[in-house]
Amino acid sequence: MVETTRRREIEDAASSLFREHGYSGTSVRDIARALDIQGASLYAHVTSKQDVLWSIVDKAADRFEAAADAALLGVGGSRSGPGSRMDALVRAHVRVVVDDLERASVFVHDWRSLSVGRRVEMLARRDAYEARFRAIIADGVATGAFAPVDPVVAASYVLTALNGIVAWYRPDGRVSPATLVEIYTDLSRRAVRARATEH
Amino acid sequence: MVETTRRREIEDAASSLFREHGYSGTSVRDIARALDIQGASLYAHVTSKQDVLWSIVDKAADRFEAAADAALLGVGGSRSGPGSRMDALVRAHVRVVVDDLERASVFVHDWRSLSVGRRVEMLARRDAYEARFRAIIADGVATGAFAPVDPVVAASYVLTALNGIVAWYRPDGRVSPATLVEIYTDLSRRAVRARATEH
Repeated sequence: MVETTRRREIEDAASSLFREHGYSGTSVRDIARALDIQGASLYAHVTSKQDVLWSIVDKAADRFEAAADAALLGVGGSRSGPGSRMDALVRAHVRVVVDDLERASVFVHDWRSLSVGRRVEMLARRDAYEARFRAIIADGVATGAFAPVDPVVAASYVLTALNGIVAWYRPDGRVSPATLVEIYTDLSRRAVRARATEH
Repeated sequence: MVETTRRREIEDAASSLFREHGYSGTSVRDIARALDIQGASLYAHVTSKQDVLWSIVDKAADRFEAAADAALLGVGGSRSGPGSRMDALVRAHVRVVVDDLERASVFVHDWRSLSVGRRVEMLARRDAYEARFRAIIADGVATGAFAPVDPVVAASYVLTALNGIVAWYRPDGRVSPATLVEIYTDLSRRAVRARATEH
């Protein structure tokens, strides 16, 4: 889909409102009001609130997947050790989150408000994405680079912690986005205990 | 407040509905229907949906605080090292979460739907609770038992991961509650890297 400026403004406004009031607590009229346009004008750009939600979540999923692909490629793919791949994935994920906290918040929380068919589709994409973390952790456990940990549980632990950034982080606060990325990468690496020498 | 059986049933049903549909997506009529009683009969026990939410969140906060107190007392309080205290706090927190996932979910997510005065009060309690984690992590960093990490960020990371259990964990699945408690305690300990010898 070609993303026009207006379309992007609509999704930015909707992300902000969904984050603040939730999907069900936000109306198309609220989105129009935030942009200072008429509800009827909004419908020239979007077909429904559900359509806006899908677009935000779908593009966010694209960004997480593309960032993960690029990050793994950047460290040499499967030729690199599980510690390096884990670091690369975590760093990429946190960067996407802090780069647009509002859209990330919709991706993390409001995807549950998608219609059933789209929710099932998104659940499968989320699971495939999380499977990258599970595979690397399983690899690290198998090679002894990581502590013997359940990869499914450990991947949930780490990804939940990373996604939790949307709930508390303020980019204009004491901790810069770049520092946050490094702290979260360190905490996640240590949680699964990649050996320092493995890097 | 004396908790009658009926009152507890109402809060159990409400917790389940709030978790599934959110606070704003649940009506008093939905709660009554889940209990197979008339809405009017429900009002003999509760004054409003907000009142039910407050009661669930307030009691959940009580349980987290009491569990943390008991856990710290159990390891000898401030006489024990930061690693032991961190383990004790994490273990206690996860136990409260898995002991009643539905009420924990309301505590984690729906407290934001409290009226302003109560939300401010709960925010202060949540902050004081999180401060216990921050203090122990700061202590561990100061003594060198933990990695040099920002205690505020690390406490957010760990608590978010622990609270995330409500979103994915199924107690009737592959991982028993007792095993989950131990895995989460291990991951959290390693995230802040308490020295193994410090225990």
